[in-house]
Amino acid sequence: MSGGDPFHVVILAGGSGTRFWPMSRAKRPKQFLALAGRRSLLRGTWDRARTLAPAERVWVVAPRALAGAVRRELPGLRRDRLVVEPSPRDTAPAIALACAVIARHDARAVTVVLPSDHVIRDADAFKRSVAVACRVARGKALVCLGIKPDRPAIGFGYLKLGARPIPGVASPVVEFVEKPDAARARRFLRSGRYLWNAGMFVWQNERFLEELARVAPEVARATAGVAAGSPGAWGKAPRISLDYAVMEKASQVAVVPLDAGWDDLGSWDAAARHASPGSGGSGERVMIGSPGAVVFGGKRVVAILDLPGVVVVDTPDALLVVSRASSEKMKSVVEAVRAAGRADLL
Amino acid sequence: MSGGDPFHVVILAGGSGTRFWPMSRAKRPKQFLALAGRRSLLRGTWDRARTLAPAERVWVVAPRALAGAVRRELPGLRRDRLVVEPSPRDTAPAIALACAVIARHDARAVTVVLPSDHVIRDADAFKRSVAVACRVARGKALVCLGIKPDRPAIGFGYLKLGARPIPGVASPVVEFVEKPDAARARRFLRSGRYLWNAGMFVWQNERFLEELARVAPEVARATAGVAAGSPGAWGKAPRISLDYAVMEKASQVAVVPLDAGWDDLGSWDAAARHASPGSGGSGERVMIGSPGAVVFGGKRVVAILDLPGVVVVDTPDALLVVSRASSEKMKSVVEAVRAAGRADLL
Repeated sequence: MSGGDPFHVVILAGGSGTRFWPMSRAKRPKQFLALAGRRSLLRGTWDRARTLAPAERVWVVAPRALAGAVRRELPGLRRDRLVVEPSPRDTAPAIALACAVIARHDARAVTVVLPSDHVIRDADAFKRSVAVACRVARGKALVCLGIKPDRPAIGFGYLKLGARPIPGVASPVVEFVEKPDAARARRFLRSGRYLWNAGMFVWQNERFLEELARVAPEVARATAGVAAGSPGAWGKAPRISLDYAVMEKASQVAVVPLDAGWDDLGSWDAAARHASPGSGGSGERVMIGSPGAVVFGGKRVVAILDLPGVVVVDTPDALLVVSRASSEKMKSVVEAVRAAGRADLL
Repeated sequence: MSGGDPFHVVILAGGSGTRFWPMSRAKRPKQFLALAGRRSLLRGTWDRARTLAPAERVWVVAPRALAGAVRRELPGLRRDRLVVEPSPRDTAPAIALACAVIARHDARAVTVVLPSDHVIRDADAFKRSVAVACRVARGKALVCLGIKPDRPAIGFGYLKLGARPIPGVASPVVEFVEKPDAARARRFLRSGRYLWNAGMFVWQNERFLEELARVAPEVARATAGVAAGSPGAWGKAPRISLDYAVMEKASQVAVVPLDAGWDDLGSWDAAARHASPGSGGSGERVMIGSPGAVVFGGKRVVAILDLPGVVVVDTPDALLVVSRASSEKMKSVVEAVRAAGRADLL
């Protein structure tokens, strides 16, 4: 990347979605799945991070329960670059802890925060946006990467752009809007003044920690304590997202647009868009009269007849058959599996 | 049953349908499946036959390849009552061979021929119809059991009833019509003069063999030869169904109606009508927004979301997902599996 203070990458490897059950389980959440290509999403994020920085400056934050799985998935991760959350507390404590740890290594670091469960098709465009974001961050802004909406999605947070752009292809963020209803989402889309919040951030580490201490002092104290060697301090960290705890309250928040084939892969339908018909498994697929049908997993032969847009997820102990149009409703399936007394499968 | 000459039951255990793939395979055809209840269709037929006659008068005809499976499925079958077809040759040679063997045991037998891959819900009504058919058969008729159509099915043969009924709730058959087209099937249904040919027959054994010798002498010679101890004679038996070879040409053919909850279970859709949602497997089923969905087989948890009328067939090496409305088209699936180089799964 361009010159200036060295910058570090933090990969967030926590999270326990149920949207990809039965392929995702509590001990193998979404980021460990190869939902778009041959590599897991986490591994894809790692590989992208490594195009930005050498391994000594790529950090991974993960809850204790996933630490072993992260190490196995990322053989290139340096042992002392894995930051373990004593227990899951949402994104604000996780990110704050990583930044506090980095601050002890490198007082002048610029930090790039990346979720590990999204897909980015265009690695070059991604790298260019991160470079711009770094330049903007060196001007003291807390920078979000923002995605131009192509539909009135109700599952994302939106960033409202201020009127006066910041030199270097950025805009000030004047409002954070969490998951709007459909009518509002349509207005946002029409207005052209909103971007999706992709959960990717770039900032001067010192500037972020100052802002954290100001707007979220409990998170700051707890995570600084853990970083200084007192894991017990973690217990005082509230369970809160970075957007709520920090970004919505911080000053000088900016957004740099990212146009790099980003997808948060929030459902089987989204995964199916990125998949070949036989994705993720080694068995034969026989599909007749079933355009848009996708099979995930499994070594068996799977035959589908006259079921357009069906998703079949074949795992050794559980099988899911769902229409793509309904794949946002996976929570009801997971709840029914729990109600049937099979929480062991979740 | 009522008095008169002793009667024997012949169960036809051959046939190799592909309609129930992947649960049915070449070595485990439909009659070995528990498609309606806990027992296999073959076992259900055996149990029904045993309400008609003692084990010494219940015979099973099966091709050599299935003989072992038949013995395992029917522990009550006497070893010397299993008639083995040296190779599959359709129903005329199979039935003729069984009747020729029976004739050597019992010159005055009345024979009841039953397919093994249908379901009959009302065992008492079945028994009553067979008793009527036996009385009619003792008057020298070759008797078919006929099912009153409840829809213009195009997959069955039809029997046209003659104008003057035979005393004892029977009618002469004046025409055999193989699988009509839809328009003809609708006319048949409206006319009230047609019954479905259920492939169940009752006759005096001697009378059948006389008629066989007259209208199908090649079949008669070949099967008499095998029954007399020359298995090589089988090679001269043509591959032909009983309807074509005998019934359409025979004189004095009659039909006795059967109203006993009969179903030939010709498709997954038909099997689904007889199944409970978790039929045939031991795994949990989680079904949401999917009325009419049915799972066959498997020990895994199967979850189905928003796919009404879907059929899932879960076997260790192959999985089928099909809409019930399309389950008549299984041949295309089986052909595609073969084309994919996986004939080993058929």
